[in-house]
Amino acid sequence: MINFHDLHTLKSFQALKTLPIPSVADNFTAIHVEEQNIDAGGGLTYNYSAKGVNEELLEALQALADEQQVIDKYELLLSGEMMNTGEKRKVLHHLTRAQQANDVIHEGTNLRQFYHHEQKRIAEFAQRIHTGEITGSTDKKITTVVQVGIGGSDLGPRALYLALQNLYLNKLEAKFISNVDPDDATAIIESCDLERTLFILVSKSGTTQETLANQNFVLQAAKKQNILHYDVMKHMVCVTSQTSPLAKDDRYLASFFIDDFIGGRYSSTSAVGGVILSLAFGAEVFEELLIGAAEADSQAREQSITENAALLDALLGVYERNIKNYAATAILPYSQALSRFPAHLQQLDMESNGKSVNRDGQAISYATGPVLFGEPGTNGQHSFYQLLHQGSDVIPLQFIGFTHSQCGVDYDYEASSSQKKLNANLIAQIAAFALGHTNNENMNKNFEGGRPASLIYAQQLTARALGALLAHYENKVMFQGFIWNLNSFDQEGVQLGKVLANDILHGNASSTVNQLFQIIQ
Amino acid sequence: MINFHDLHTLKSFQALKTLPIPSVADNFTAIHVEEQNIDAGGGLTYNYSAKGVNEELLEALQALADEQQVIDKYELLLSGEMMNTGEKRKVLHHLTRAQQANDVIHEGTNLRQFYHHEQKRIAEFAQRIHTGEITGSTDKKITTVVQVGIGGSDLGPRALYLALQNLYLNKLEAKFISNVDPDDATAIIESCDLERTLFILVSKSGTTQETLANQNFVLQAAKKQNILHYDVMKHMVCVTSQTSPLAKDDRYLASFFIDDFIGGRYSSTSAVGGVILSLAFGAEVFEELLIGAAEADSQAREQSITENAALLDALLGVYERNIKNYAATAILPYSQALSRFPAHLQQLDMESNGKSVNRDGQAISYATGPVLFGEPGTNGQHSFYQLLHQGSDVIPLQFIGFTHSQCGVDYDYEASSSQKKLNANLIAQIAAFALGHTNNENMNKNFEGGRPASLIYAQQLTARALGALLAHYENKVMFQGFIWNLNSFDQEGVQLGKVLANDILHGNASSTVNQLFQIIQ
Repeated sequence: MINFHDLHTLKSFQALKTLPIPSVADNFTAIHVEEQNIDAGGGLTYNYSAKGVNEELLEALQALADEQQVIDKYELLLSGEMMNTGEKRKVLHHLTRAQQANDVIHEGTNLRQFYHHEQKRIAEFAQRIHTGEITGSTDKKITTVVQVGIGGSDLGPRALYLALQNLYLNKLEAKFISNVDPDDATAIIESCDLERTLFILVSKSGTTQETLANQNFVLQAAKKQNILHYDVMKHMVCVTSQTSPLAKDDRYLASFFIDDFIGGRYSSTSAVGGVILSLAFGAEVFEELLIGAAEADSQAREQSITENAALLDALLGVYERNIKNYAATAILPYSQALSRFPAHLQQLDMESNGKSVNRDGQAISYATGPVLFGEPGTNGQHSFYQLLHQGSDVIPLQFIGFTHSQCGVDYDYEASSSQKKLNANLIAQIAAFALGHTNNENMNKNFEGGRPASLIYAQQLTARALGALLAHYENKVMFQGFIWNLNSFDQEGVQLGKVLANDILHGNASSTVNQLFQIIQ
Repeated sequence: MINFHDLHTLKSFQALKTLPIPSVADNFTAIHVEEQNIDAGGGLTYNYSAKGVNEELLEALQALADEQQVIDKYELLLSGEMMNTGEKRKVLHHLTRAQQANDVIHEGTNLRQFYHHEQKRIAEFAQRIHTGEITGSTDKKITTVVQVGIGGSDLGPRALYLALQNLYLNKLEAKFISNVDPDDATAIIESCDLERTLFILVSKSGTTQETLANQNFVLQAAKKQNILHYDVMKHMVCVTSQTSPLAKDDRYLASFFIDDFIGGRYSSTSAVGGVILSLAFGAEVFEELLIGAAEADSQAREQSITENAALLDALLGVYERNIKNYAATAILPYSQALSRFPAHLQQLDMESNGKSVNRDGQAISYATGPVLFGEPGTNGQHSFYQLLHQGSDVIPLQFIGFTHSQCGVDYDYEASSSQKKLNANLIAQIAAFALGHTNNENMNKNFEGGRPASLIYAQQLTARALGALLAHYENKVMFQGFIWNLNSFDQEGVQLGKVLANDILHGNASSTVNQLFQIIQ
């Protein structure tokens, strides 16, 4: 029997509140550095030796995970239970990396097979583009692919593309149009040779305002170029649900499908990420990413928190949010390839758990999702780290690092390579945050320390490691949603603005709103 | 007589604490939308009608500004007083847009003339590159310029370049290498035709580890390409201080100078931003940017808070941080061109005011700089806005918008253009955050509202408007530093990590740190 309780009603949470808060510096010892590692799948390891834990705290967190039945709820979700309570939908993004999951049957359809079938169709399509079997409408080979989508149809796929761009052969160059700002579409379209460009229109509902406006933008811009024999619809595929208006439009060169059980911010491993990544790098690279994600999903089924990186990461985050009262978390990848990964996690986390009502729609009294932000190191060190070290609020830190670079090109300068400098900085920062440094003479050079950090690391940022990293965070966010008793899978908070924007566009806004709109006309 | 007092000791601050907190929704009326606008210089206007103010609060904030002598301290800074107390330096970035400033003489040198002289040297150099008078070492015309720098030598110039790239003719294409991650340099170098590329090495001290490693990277990569008659130093200019080791190296094609009175995060209007922007767009575009910045600087001298946008913005930020206890601020530009402007502001604000000691090095008890983060709208709406609308913490919002797009290309879709949709969304969001929407039946569709927003707007994002926008935030951050009694111009919090990284690289780290370094080897 699985029960859903608000966090503050749990005995284990009340017990957690009474525990003394362990020191970060005390836990950060050579032995713990060696011991406090968890296999996170896909070649990733999660190290929590700079996290300020002790045996007593870990036991209390295990009790919280157990009482809140976090892993049982994950199993329920995997089994196809309707876990998106607000929208009354299943939550099936794990099935898109189907290796570890059970079959889920919905209205007579085996959805694991459905997602897998789409993945195979994508692989075949990508190959036909790569071999030149499918060309543009003027018989030229396709060299560029442009994803037209916003939110989950943009941030995740874009972050993943950038993350792999320097490691794998780029069979096609990928670009992205997301913003309804006309300058976004104009700049990208002008940078493309339309005869050699394929557009991927991505909208689950087929009604996303920005994406339809940008599709129209592409159509109009193509018309204006007036290229002989050019047919823009032969350069356009769509990714949508089978019930959307787009699915009924047979002018697309091809259509690939997802369904209502794949939330936008969880859709990178579905056709939403699959088409562009398979076109850019080949279907086998996307397959590797799915394998890594599946490995992380599998690790996340462990009941023991010291065997389950995503679960421990989630619990420590809740502890920092609700017991230590920290309001934000920084994501700090020491890899330029992950430059947009924090922006993806920002959506994933803040849109999932930035809520004030529980899964049944009742108001809750405790803090939920934190603000997430971050930039790659070492760049961030020369930017906002000042506040992280000496600001008035403590901000927990999530470091990500890799032994080897992607390009494999490196040079020594002053007796060490750039990669070695990168990782020396990464490790030095963790130590500096944990331990601090006392300077009573010059208080502006005094560091309190006690600022907790975790480190996720792997040998190299491959497609497999990246898939696992993606899934690690998806699962962490899902677990936190279970612990806070939220529905992490809807986003009603984005609706009001949409309604008011349409009111303005159709002349139905209030006088105050109209007045404000006028000042920017 | 100017006095420096901690915030909590001020009578006006104690009075502020006793005031009732005005409602955001109450202030947001058609009349206030029209009235609550301040000229911010450069064609920018600051609107605070969704900020939750009333007469009483504005009077109390004016009293705070007066008692803390905020504008007098700004005048002191402009006059050349040593306001960077930690490093015992003047703070002279305003002088780089010298039109409004007094002369400042330091050890016999007129520094306004010095900065202006460098600006003229840059303009001449840029013209000689543009006309082809100066070519690469193999006599080919320069088409690409790459800035090699990190922190303030990267984020500001990069954000400004991206902001203007679609409006002005690109005389040269600009790229950036910042991270010590070898993949950053490798990817950029491989994308360049070295014979047609000019590198700008930017380091005030001439000792920045990342930048010197990346310079070496360029040198080694060029050597490897083994291009006949190619001389890499004839493709490299430097921006540094006259006392740095780089200044003594006469192998550079040219050297341009700043000095210790220009802090990295305040250096975009000095040679640090000037060389790359003048090369990319022409010196006249950079000059326009300086004019806009100077206009904002001039507006910021007003004592009245309802005539001084930067000052009111600063005071409202302090009110939200120290009275309303909000921990973060979101920067939301409705312009894709400003995609990296929030990352620049993140450094500017968090590195300046993320401090826990006052300007004299004494510990302070109140909250200082908030976490800053943001992405362009409408993209952000499909990402983290869920948390902004319905999360457990209130986050004040700084919207930025423009009447016209930059490219001027637009199409109607469903009876409105993309630009109109963009701005309808912008205005709708401000209203949604301020007013909320009650839904007692479905609490997940209930919006509390009361979430304060400001709007900075202009006709178009030109170089002049951008300069003013940059200066607005520089001045806001400076004013907040004065109010909190901080030194906003040093960054001692970044030193400890540097020291520990060198310890690791030289084998001097502790066993715990070495152990952690080993796991990622």
